[in-house]
Amino acid sequence: MGSISLTWQDLAEKKRQSLLDLIPSEWCIPLPIPSAKERRDVTGAYTHQFLSPHEIAITETNAAEIVKNTCNGSWTATEVVTAFCHRAALAHQLLNCLHEIFFDQAIAKAKALDALFAEGGPVGPLHGLPVSLKDQFHVEGVETTMGYVGWIDTFEGEKGTGKERVFESEMVRELRKCGAIPFCKTSVPHTLMAAETKNNIIGCTLNPFNRNMSCGGSSGGEGALIGFRGSPAGFGTDIGGSVRIPSGFNGLFGLRPSHGRLPYGGAANSMDGQNTIRSVAGPIATSAKSLKLLTKSILNQEPWLYDPLVVEMPWREQSKADTLSFGIVMTESGVRPQPPVRRALDTVISVAKKLGHGLVEWNPPSHKKALEIGFSVFLSDGGLDIHKHIGLSGEPLHPRVAELYGNTPSAPITADKVAENYLQQRAYQKEYLDYWNSTAMQTGTGRPVDAVICMLSPMAALQLDSWMFIGCTPWVNVLDYSAIVIPVTKVDKDIDKFDEAYQPVNEDDRKTWESYNPDIQHGTPVGIQIVGRRFNEEKLIEIAELFEEALKDLSE
Amino acid sequence: MGSISLTWQDLAEKKRQSLLDLIPSEWCIPLPIPSAKERRDVTGAYTHQFLSPHEIAITETNAAEIVKNTCNGSWTATEVVTAFCHRAALAHQLLNCLHEIFFDQAIAKAKALDALFAEGGPVGPLHGLPVSLKDQFHVEGVETTMGYVGWIDTFEGEKGTGKERVFESEMVRELRKCGAIPFCKTSVPHTLMAAETKNNIIGCTLNPFNRNMSCGGSSGGEGALIGFRGSPAGFGTDIGGSVRIPSGFNGLFGLRPSHGRLPYGGAANSMDGQNTIRSVAGPIATSAKSLKLLTKSILNQEPWLYDPLVVEMPWREQSKADTLSFGIVMTESGVRPQPPVRRALDTVISVAKKLGHGLVEWNPPSHKKALEIGFSVFLSDGGLDIHKHIGLSGEPLHPRVAELYGNTPSAPITADKVAENYLQQRAYQKEYLDYWNSTAMQTGTGRPVDAVICMLSPMAALQLDSWMFIGCTPWVNVLDYSAIVIPVTKVDKDIDKFDEAYQPVNEDDRKTWESYNPDIQHGTPVGIQIVGRRFNEEKLIEIAELFEEALKDLSE
Repeated sequence: MGSISLTWQDLAEKKRQSLLDLIPSEWCIPLPIPSAKERRDVTGAYTHQFLSPHEIAITETNAAEIVKNTCNGSWTATEVVTAFCHRAALAHQLLNCLHEIFFDQAIAKAKALDALFAEGGPVGPLHGLPVSLKDQFHVEGVETTMGYVGWIDTFEGEKGTGKERVFESEMVRELRKCGAIPFCKTSVPHTLMAAETKNNIIGCTLNPFNRNMSCGGSSGGEGALIGFRGSPAGFGTDIGGSVRIPSGFNGLFGLRPSHGRLPYGGAANSMDGQNTIRSVAGPIATSAKSLKLLTKSILNQEPWLYDPLVVEMPWREQSKADTLSFGIVMTESGVRPQPPVRRALDTVISVAKKLGHGLVEWNPPSHKKALEIGFSVFLSDGGLDIHKHIGLSGEPLHPRVAELYGNTPSAPITADKVAENYLQQRAYQKEYLDYWNSTAMQTGTGRPVDAVICMLSPMAALQLDSWMFIGCTPWVNVLDYSAIVIPVTKVDKDIDKFDEAYQPVNEDDRKTWESYNPDIQHGTPVGIQIVGRRFNEEKLIEIAELFEEALKDLSE
Repeated sequence: MGSISLTWQDLAEKKRQSLLDLIPSEWCIPLPIPSAKERRDVTGAYTHQFLSPHEIAITETNAAEIVKNTCNGSWTATEVVTAFCHRAALAHQLLNCLHEIFFDQAIAKAKALDALFAEGGPVGPLHGLPVSLKDQFHVEGVETTMGYVGWIDTFEGEKGTGKERVFESEMVRELRKCGAIPFCKTSVPHTLMAAETKNNIIGCTLNPFNRNMSCGGSSGGEGALIGFRGSPAGFGTDIGGSVRIPSGFNGLFGLRPSHGRLPYGGAANSMDGQNTIRSVAGPIATSAKSLKLLTKSILNQEPWLYDPLVVEMPWREQSKADTLSFGIVMTESGVRPQPPVRRALDTVISVAKKLGHGLVEWNPPSHKKALEIGFSVFLSDGGLDIHKHIGLSGEPLHPRVAELYGNTPSAPITADKVAENYLQQRAYQKEYLDYWNSTAMQTGTGRPVDAVICMLSPMAALQLDSWMFIGCTPWVNVLDYSAIVIPVTKVDKDIDKFDEAYQPVNEDDRKTWESYNPDIQHGTPVGIQIVGRRFNEEKLIEIAELFEEALKDLSE
């Protein structure tokens, strides 16, 4: 009744407060929460003060190892879920990374699983694993706002659909069948079309390793939460880099599968129905083995029987890796990585060499062309969908998004132009594929390169309220290739010095060069991406495992 | 120079005559060609008079058996190709089924293959197999008109592209790698958007078994030619039934794979770039084993490495079939099949029973809804593409197509409406899939139905210049399901009597009922379709083999 007269600010504040109210008082951090200046890095030692040794042990174990413990009875689902709920609550207070909290539901489900375990062992391959979900996936008992104030108390902006707080997305159904336990939903930038995570409900999500920095986006809440170890694993989505960027920025492993590999059915989306470059769901976790476990477990559910867009392609075990060869690209559209990212690339390259793998210089068709195709597609509805959902509450559009979509919608393109965009994409895909094949002449393995090692951003992470070059990831989406992100190192101001002498080659390069600030970025994780052909998910996970192992050896 | 002043009629006539000029005089049928009244059925005995016994033996052997003979050296590629060139030449004179003739090229390639065979055996799994191609596939040495007068002497309507008579479609490249020999291209209705095959270049393509009847469309030339045994196998395309309808109308096996299974790259198309309901390439042949051979051979070429839209899904050998269960649907959107089609369905059902398979009544989501979605998508560009290509020469648009697309283009829909169409399609796919899964409760096999047996048209074939209900096939395209057509019987005026007493239930049903004429249709082949889930090509081929065998036993 009274809600009719509430402003969008009232609605947002009410929602924001309702989340905080769901955190048990014994899990609340004494106010005031320290500022970024007082406490840049809130991971590790800082957070340990609020946790028991057993909670620390659980939450600093990766998903694959957690499931071993829940499946052999060493840990109960209840203790695992409770520990992550506690740490997720801390994460949210420090980082603003949650949109929905349903710890009670999760702990109740954990108890039920423990009872089933006592009777017949694990219920599935993810028995008792807490899983966080980007706030596009619908989960029973809670709502999905996707960062829109106008979606509060609705189903995707509509009231009275009968689906509110009842309907579950296909991914959620399958996770439950595997024995996983969703326990929270994570923040996104409203519209999803941003590489940082801000909205008018929860504000801005911070990077746990360096709160001067963004967690990235659009699966930013996943990145921040899992980076903080407030969740062992989760699912984000990626239409231009939205799984990869937050994975890299928060020191995590993340997989962008090709479209049709993992279920997206029944999830909310931005500009849903745009069918040229399609968003995909992908896992984010703290180890490559965990990505494997999640991907394989979902595929074992035969998602193609339940989601019409999933391709009938079971998990394909890889035969032991031969000598591999990698395409290497050190710049992107002329933009040179900032020093920490350059060091990360150098590290991965030297590891590849040390492991005996071959390296080939990568000179593909222009990624800039892909970016142009991508934006032409992303803008095809003139912003109608975004402005409609923003307009539900009258909230302001994030300025970064307004740069793309204006403050009012423009005319959508016509069907013949939609087709032209698609034809451009298809031609680009063919040109790229032919280039990829052509590398067989250079690798010495008899095959074209197995994957391409490249940056996912020229900077370790986006500095809050700053500019970022976003041209490193969308070409993968235009090609619908599979890609994986691996964490490599952290910014070290003593090693990664600003290069005074550098002469930028173009405007983006200049802005990237200038924006590097070792002092502010110090401590931020640095990841890189490895790109494979379409539907090469298994191969990329295997490659990520190789590098994970070798990088561990390096740091030991 | 002089060509500037040629009318479209002149250009069409010149092209038509140039084709006839490519037929060696010793292969010409003495004029006048008998009319349909004089000679309804031109297959079998009638045609045998023009062929040697060895040519008859070769051309009446199916593709799988032909390849056995070429691979074991019993037949040379040259004798096989020459025999089919001869018979195809006869077919064209009697049926107007060819758009391009390149017998000389094919025979030269056959000689080269024979030389290679002498040195090292067969070059591939289709060694020496002549293959015909719908006139959307580009083949070196000849052009592609797709039935448009304005495409004569161009590449897809454009002059000076450098691709004219040089560029080959991916399917053609792979067929050649398998050792197959393209030798002619077959007729289509201009625009491809018709279930009969007429254009202003070659006129109207006739049904070889009954020249009162259409060969169907849009892969109509393939149907007529292979039905006549002027080609052992070929490839058509299907966006609404265009492989299946001509397969059924001409007594053939035809496969509509799901999108992404077989390569379509570098083929011409109508409304290319429409990316919601996508046309697919599929094989047509005289036996199920031949479909298997063609499909498997192409997949063994790993087409996903060359065509970016092909999914990495190798041929999957099926384990020996259990007891199967089939969904059965005897009417379509209220339309009852004409008596011969009813008899064909009854025959297949009784065979299924005899083989011990289960039958379940099929009550799926409305196929009419699928048809509405389909046409909404097909009309999304307002006819811009079609009218552009028709306009190149000023030729008149086929009246049946003009009923759909008007005589001038209308406004294309906007990108947001394109997205809405796609969302409707996706919702329909999900609803259908849920229905399919729900049948697990009824089958007794523990699985949902394995495939659905249904008509592909309520009539055996379209009577020339008549009306046809076209609602039996597009739902498969909207769902992107796999489907296979099997030949069952022929219209028999003595068995398939007109049912005077029938009370039609709707207008389409009434028109279908009224239009049945046993005298005119007598002798026309009757096929039915079997529809599987997405990417179930191997399973459907196996099912078709089962029925082929059982139907053979029945007729013996």
